[in-house]
Parts: sequence; C-alpha cells; structure tokens
Amino acid sequence: MHIEILDTTLRDGAQGEGIVFSVRDKLAVAQALDELGVAWIEAGNPGSNPKDLEFFRLASPLRLGTAKLCAFGSTRKKGVKAADDGQLRSLLEAETEGVVIFGKSWDLHVSEVLRVSAEENIAMIAETVAFLKAAGRTVIYDAEHFFDGYTANAVYALSTIKAAADAGADRIVLCDTNGGTFPDAVAAAVREVKQAVPQPCIGIHAHNDSGLALANTISAVQAGCAHVQGTLVGFGERCGNTALAALIPSMELKLKLRCLPEGNLARISGLTRRVAEIANVSINDDMPYVGGHAFSHKGGMHSDGVLKDRRSFEHIDPEAVGNDRHILLSEVGGRSAIAERAKKIDAAITKDHPVSAALAEKIKNLEAEGWSFEGADASFEILVRRELGLYQPRFHIEAYRVMSEHPTGETIACSHAWVKVLVEGQHEIAAAEGDGPVNALDGALRRALTRFFPGLAQVRLEDYKVRVIDGKEATAAQVRVLIESTDGERSWNTVGVSADIIDASRAALVDSIEYKLIGDMERRKE
Amino acid sequence: MHIEILDTTLRDGAQGEGIVFSVRDKLAVAQALDELGVAWIEAGNPGSNPKDLEFFRLASPLRLGTAKLCAFGSTRKKGVKAADDGQLRSLLEAETEGVVIFGKSWDLHVSEVLRVSAEENIAMIAETVAFLKAAGRTVIYDAEHFFDGYTANAVYALSTIKAAADAGADRIVLCDTNGGTFPDAVAAAVREVKQAVPQPCIGIHAHNDSGLALANTISAVQAGCAHVQGTLVGFGERCGNTALAALIPSMELKLKLRCLPEGNLARISGLTRRVAEIANVSINDDMPYVGGHAFSHKGGMHSDGVLKDRRSFEHIDPEAVGNDRHILLSEVGGRSAIAERAKKIDAAITKDHPVSAALAEKIKNLEAEGWSFEGADASFEILVRRELGLYQPRFHIEAYRVMSEHPTGETIACSHAWVKVLVEGQHEIAAAEGDGPVNALDGALRRALTRFFPGLAQVRLEDYKVRVIDGKEATAAQVRVLIESTDGERSWNTVGVSADIIDASRAALVDSIEYKLIGDMERRKE
Repeated sequence: MHIEILDTTLRDGAQGEGIVFSVRDKLAVAQALDELGVAWIEAGNPGSNPKDLEFFRLASPLRLGTAKLCAFGSTRKKGVKAADDGQLRSLLEAETEGVVIFGKSWDLHVSEVLRVSAEENIAMIAETVAFLKAAGRTVIYDAEHFFDGYTANAVYALSTIKAAADAGADRIVLCDTNGGTFPDAVAAAVREVKQAVPQPCIGIHAHNDSGLALANTISAVQAGCAHVQGTLVGFGERCGNTALAALIPSMELKLKLRCLPEGNLARISGLTRRVAEIANVSINDDMPYVGGHAFSHKGGMHSDGVLKDRRSFEHIDPEAVGNDRHILLSEVGGRSAIAERAKKIDAAITKDHPVSAALAEKIKNLEAEGWSFEGADASFEILVRRELGLYQPRFHIEAYRVMSEHPTGETIACSHAWVKVLVEGQHEIAAAEGDGPVNALDGALRRALTRFFPGLAQVRLEDYKVRVIDGKEATAAQVRVLIESTDGERSWNTVGVSADIIDASRAALVDSIEYKLIGDMERRKE
Repeated sequence: MHIEILDTTLRDGAQGEGIVFSVRDKLAVAQALDELGVAWIEAGNPGSNPKDLEFFRLASPLRLGTAKLCAFGSTRKKGVKAADDGQLRSLLEAETEGVVIFGKSWDLHVSEVLRVSAEENIAMIAETVAFLKAAGRTVIYDAEHFFDGYTANAVYALSTIKAAADAGADRIVLCDTNGGTFPDAVAAAVREVKQAVPQPCIGIHAHNDSGLALANTISAVQAGCAHVQGTLVGFGERCGNTALAALIPSMELKLKLRCLPEGNLARISGLTRRVAEIANVSINDDMPYVGGHAFSHKGGMHSDGVLKDRRSFEHIDPEAVGNDRHILLSEVGGRSAIAERAKKIDAAITKDHPVSAALAEKIKNLEAEGWSFEGADASFEILVRRELGLYQPRFHIEAYRVMSEHPTGETIACSHAWVKVLVEGQHEIAAAEGDGPVNALDGALRRALTRFFPGLAQVRLEDYKVRVIDGKEATAAQVRVLIESTDGERSWNTVGVSADIIDASRAALVDSIEYKLIGDMERRKE
C-alpha cells in the first residue's frame, strides 16, 4: 500500500522557535525534500508572508522530480465572498498544483477565536474549497483541532469536514493541532470519520506535545488514513510536528507501507542532516533512525552482543536508513568495542589480540583519572598507534607560559602566551595573543610549529568543551577538555585531562596537531 | 490508581553516549530524583563497575524521602552456583533495598550471545532470583528483549518469566530492549502475560529507537502494567529510554494515574533541567512538557489564540508541570517567572511591578550575550537586588594577573595569580598558587579579601562547569562559567560570561563572594 507524504518544513516547520529560512534556504530545502521523494511540499503562506510569494515565483523553474508544491492559507474572511478575499487570491497567485486550506472544527475556536457563528464557519469552509476547486487546484483541507473539536462536539466537528468533502476537497486532514490526543482516541476518531465521510482520502497531521506524534500518526494510518503530514526533522510550533525522518523508516521497514520511491530510504539520514544544516540547527542525537546516537552501543554487553549478532541490540540495520553503527569506548564498554575501532588502524587486531587487552587496561586506568575517549576518536587513534609502536611524536613542547590579566580596573581582560618547541633537534619560540588563555596558547603553538609543518596553517578549532570531573579520591578536581579541530576538509576530536585547565588544553591541542600530521604523512604515502 | 516509577538515569542513562557521571554527580542526581518522588532509583551496576560500589557506600547516609535504591546486575554465570558468583555477591554488598536482575527471554540471545542451553538459561534466572530473595531483597526481574523474544518464540519467552515469578520475583518487567516494538504489539503481549503470569506486578521498560517509547509505555499501562521504568531526561543506550519527564505529566494529567506524591508534578520541569545540568547536557528544547519550547507560540494566529483562550493552542496549563509560556517576539512571557523568583527578595514584586519588566528586558539582553540564570540563583538574586537598589558592591578588583606555565619539559605545569582589591578605600594585594589558573585566581582573591571579611575563610568551590557558546554573530565564541560554592552550611551557584575563560571565572567568583557577604550581613541583622 502507498501512503502519500506531505512535508510542511517550509510552513509549519518555519513556525518552530529558532527556525528562520531565507528564500534561498527554502529553495534548498525543497530540493532536498524532492530528492527524498515526498509527494507534496507545503512551502509557505503567501497570504500572510510576502517572502513566501517570492519563493513560489523562484520555485516554479525548479525541476522537481516527484514532489509537487502547495501553498497554505485559511478559509475566507467572514462576510466576504471568496473571490473578493485577498488572501485567497494570493494563494492562486502562487500558481501551485495544490493548495492546503485550514478551517475550524472545534466549536471553542469558532466562538472564541474566530468569533463567528457555527453556520458562518461552515459556509466559510464550503465556499473556500469550492472556489479553489473551480480554479483547478488540488485542495487539501486541514481540519484544525479536529480531535479536540471531536471530543468537545462530535456532531459539529464532523459537519465541518462533511462541508469540505461536499464542496470537493481532495483530501480531508485531521489535525491534532495542540498535540494532546492519545493514539487510541486518534484511531477511534479516524474510524468514525471514515464511516461518516467515505470520500475523499483522509489524512493525519499530528503535533508532539505529548511525545506521541509518531504513535498518533501510525495509529491513524492503521485506522485508515492514507495521507500523512509532518516535517522531515520534526520542526514546528512548540514541541514540533511528526518527524518524518523518524516515521518513514517505521512505515516502510515495519508496516511495509511505501512512502518514498524505491531505493530512497537509504538517503533519509543524509538528507535529514542536510535540511537541519540549512536551518542551522543540529538534529537531536537521540533522534530515532537518523540521529547520531541511534546506533551507538556503549554498555559492554551491548557492544559485545552487537558484534556477535547485529540483531541482538539493533531493531533494524543502520544501512537501511543510511546511518552508521558506533561502538563506544567507556568503562561500561569492553574489549570487543576497542578491537572494533582499533581494526581501522591495523586490520589484524581482534578482541583476543594482546593489544586489545593492553588497551582495555590502559583505557580503564585513564578513565579512572577522568579521561574519556568517547568523543575523542583522534586521541584514541594516537593511543592505539602508540601501543602498536606505530607512533613517534613529531614535536615536543619544551616550555610554555600563558598570562591572563586585567591590568587595571578600567581595561578589558587580555591573554597572551609563549611556547618553545623542539622539532628534530631544532628549537623555535613563538608568542600570540588570544580571546582567552587557550586561544592564546593555541595561537602560539601553531605559530611555532608552522615553520616546520606548513600544513598546520589550515587547522583551526571548531569547538572547545570543558568538564570538571571528580578525581577518584575527590581531592583535586580534574578538568577534561574536548577539542574539535578542522582543516577545512575533515574534522577530528581530541581530549586532554589535567588538574590545570591550561595543561589539559595543551594535551588536547598536541593530540590534535599530531593527528593532523599523521594524516598528512599517510596521504603523502598513498 | 498508582503507578510505581523506577528511574534508571544512573544505570541505563549512564549508558547513553556522552553521559558520564562522577560519584558526586550520581549523589546529586539521586537527590533530585528523590525530591521528585520516584519510588525506585536504579543506581548502578556494582558487579561491572567499581565506581558504582563506591556510590552505594556513600549513598547509604543520604536521607531519601520517597525513593528506595536498587542495584542492577545480571543472572548468575553459567555453571556456577549463585552463592559463588562474584557479581551477585557485589550486588548484595551494595546493601540496597531492591535489586534489579536482568535475564534473557529471547532464544536468539540465549543461543547466540549467552551461548547456553535453553534449560540452563531458565535455571540461571530461577536460581538468581531465589538467591536474592533469600537474602531479603525486593527483586525486580527485567526480562530483557521480552517482546522480540515473544515474537520469535512465545512459549520460551513466557517460560523465562514464569521461572522468575515462581522463584519469587516481586516485579516482572517486560523490556523492549531494542526499541523496535509497536504499541499494539506491546498491548497484546502484556495482556497475554497477565493471563499466563497472574502474579506478581508486571512492569514495562521501553527504548525509543522507533520514537515510540512513550506510546509503548502508555499502551502497556493501559493493558495492565503498574510498574514503569525510564530515565527522567530520557538518557540511555542509542535513542534513549522512556523519558519520564515526558511520560509522567501524561499519566497524571490525562490518564489520572498517580506516579508522584501529590503536589510534586509542578517541580518536574525544574528537576529535569537540574539532572540535565548535572550531566552537563542541555535538554532538547522540543521535549514534551518540560522543554524550553514546549509552550512557545510563534505563529501570529497561535499567539493571538493563546492570549484569547489558553486552551486554544495549549493541551495543558504549563504551570501544572512548572514550565513557562513564551510568546515569542514579545516580552509578555518570562515576566511571571521573573516575578515569581524576585518575590523571594521583596514580596511586593508581582508580574506587573515595573521591576519585573525592567528585569525581563535586562535578562533578555544578557541571554542574547550568552548568560543563563537557569542554574545560577545567586547571580540572579544579585541582579534583582541591583535593580531594586538593594545592592552595593562590597569590593572592587583593581587588577589581576594569572600565569600558567610549564617552565621546562621535565616539571609539571603550575599556575599562580595575584590580585589587587579595593575595599572601603583600602588596597590589598595578594598572590596564590593553584591547581589551575582559576583555582589560583580564586585563592589570591579570597586571600586578599579575608583581611576585610574573615567569614570568607570558610568558602570553597564545590563545582566548576564551563560551556562554550556561540556568540550571536558567530564571531568570537563566548565562554559561560558556572560555579557552585559552599561555606559548609549552604551552597550557591553563580555565573559569568566572557570571551576569556579567566574573565568569565572572575565574574562568577565575584558574584559568589558578594552573595556570601550579603548572606552574612543579613544574618547579622536578624
């Protein structure tokens, strides 16, 4: 069976806190959604937002493959003919194949928010749908607050959607606008609607205020809905809309309902990250199927189990959705996890290789001192290379001094540093100022080393995290610094631990630079 | 009806990627969970992790109100007597009232992961439960992978939990370990289990790999489960466990099932943030009920609707869960929260007091620069006092210099600082060494001030956290420092923000000392 997907990232998604799309962003999102292969892209509200009309003008030359665009608007104003309603006219000006119209199903909203009579509301729905159908549009009717309305006054709620159906709407979409409905209530209402309104196709639009948007959508589909609305990443008002990236894999892999063109599901992780990237937000790491942690295994028994049989701790194969498995290193992880990662450096390393046992022991001791290699792949790799005898430090820091001062009450704080390094028998000393002591130390260190390793000029810090941890004896607190570095092509993470934040930063900076130098050397060999 | 809540933040939650708790952190989390009022705190696995045994030793003097502790472990090893199993002995050494034991229900795991016979697995379950019961523990039996096992081989899966029940387990908890089960399948299996195993109480433990942990938990409860496991924030392997902060409000407000002591639900937002803060992560803004955006209204129609009638776009009243409404692009939101907190300093301050508006404006600006008063009550109080004209700084830092150095390749790093202060027209200068630059600065500052304020001799730093945040213009990153101080009697939290970590620490230290001086002064007045 086929389920029709409508993505509203560009409309309902843009109503999420912190989500702002430029017209260029919107075009890029539409492109990504089309690559994924959704049926409809609800792309904006030209009546309320002039920027959206600009989008529709620029979008018409986009060569979309599977997706069709639709504009979003509301029923006509009270006491006005549909043909005289400016907002409806701007919907037609968008020249989209589809139009989504929302109307009121909840008597509370009719009387308290819209402030019209029950009859006028019905007329507004019927006349708006008929007007847009006469203009040749596919009309998708969103019954706003349908489930709350159905609970409050079922007869009236049903009469509003009957009016839309009778006027020719192509889809009737039941909305859980406030996100407060439970799956059993959704299923019961959908079954009732299917009885009362046998035509046309019924859809579902859920919000996540109770954390049940996915469950409600699945429940609605199981009860007979064949059109699903949501946003790829889950953007939307308050707690967001149904996250299509978390829904579609369940629908395709588990319920065997086709949502996307064949073969496209494996692109969903990458495209979801791309859309989040365009919106300049990170997707939640714990997002089902597509999140960065969705297939991360940390408990020792979990890591060990997955390596024996993937199914033992994975409900699906991560490749099916284009995501990756991560075996984490930690005190709860074990030797198999270490071997799995060390294998990338030397394929001969197995769980039973003596190096695995030595590394497990070393990591356990380092973790007791406060180190953590979970987010520090590059430091882990250096550790493995050292254990295998494959690592030779390329430089030594002979001495450094970092000063932070606030020379008088009036001036602002400033930091500077000098560093003396030794590289193949030669000394170099350099100094730098910085936004803070670590920034100054980083600047001085890289300035001193660039004479020997010009490739370091491209390296810069992308992120810097600090965590204070208790030493085992709870005496002096240890500081753990995590650094993310980039050379423009690749990013890598390193860690340093010390009682002194500057010294912990120094350790993480040294690993970061060594990792870059190892990579450059290996690429020269290739 | 009452539902028993077991929180496993400290065990399954600690298996989440990026979650690392020190023993001190664990004690603070246990305290927060007890304040919320959960029934059980599953606090660690003493058999696999020596740090956890240390926790149980330190936790026994904690005066917990409603919560009881339990230790977590697995069934005995194959071919060994329960009494001779070191892991089971360490479970008893934890001296907790409850013990959670997991065993295998899925024949795939028995043969492929555990690699024992079907009969030996049953014996391992029965003998382990009987051994712990004989030692006087409340035994909670977690049937790992129950739903997958039930699908693969229902007869065998049921026989494993019957073995646990017959051996005297006090709870049988059905686990969706891989998180791949759907709510309808959960309900069907729970009903079957209730038939086959009428005693004892049945529980549910869900994972969120399909985004259905909440729905599955609700479905299980509706089918007869009366014990629910999860983690407050949702931490856990891969996509996490059932997030109790998102579940409990649905259970209490909508299903009318009591999970917490009466009156505690309104504390859930604050306590969830506190637990996330201890783990040094931010809760997802779109988290149901407790997230920062859960009651944010952005669409014009939404904001307008909510101001006309709250119910129009809110499924519950945010106050019921201690969260706040935010009307975006307007500062109506926030003011009641500010007034609520400012009231503690001056009872006359209401939402409509001019100070509330001035504070709302000031805090909005400070937050845009990266400040956050969420975990910094003492800094907030100083801000309020300043706005009310009740605050007069007791000292000024005229100048400071902090040096961190590593003078030669052989010695260890060291930090020292000097500070010059002005107190009532008198200058004092002092210097100190420290474990790091902040420790040195703190030492020098307090040494200089103790001559004027001897009470400062008792003050010491308890915790120090650093987070790097992007400046609004994504130019220089800002550093936010949170400090927890104590004088042995009370603890308080302050915040500082700057591009320079030393200067941010200076700001937080100054607030910390001022707060202590204000407190001492007020106590002298009393």
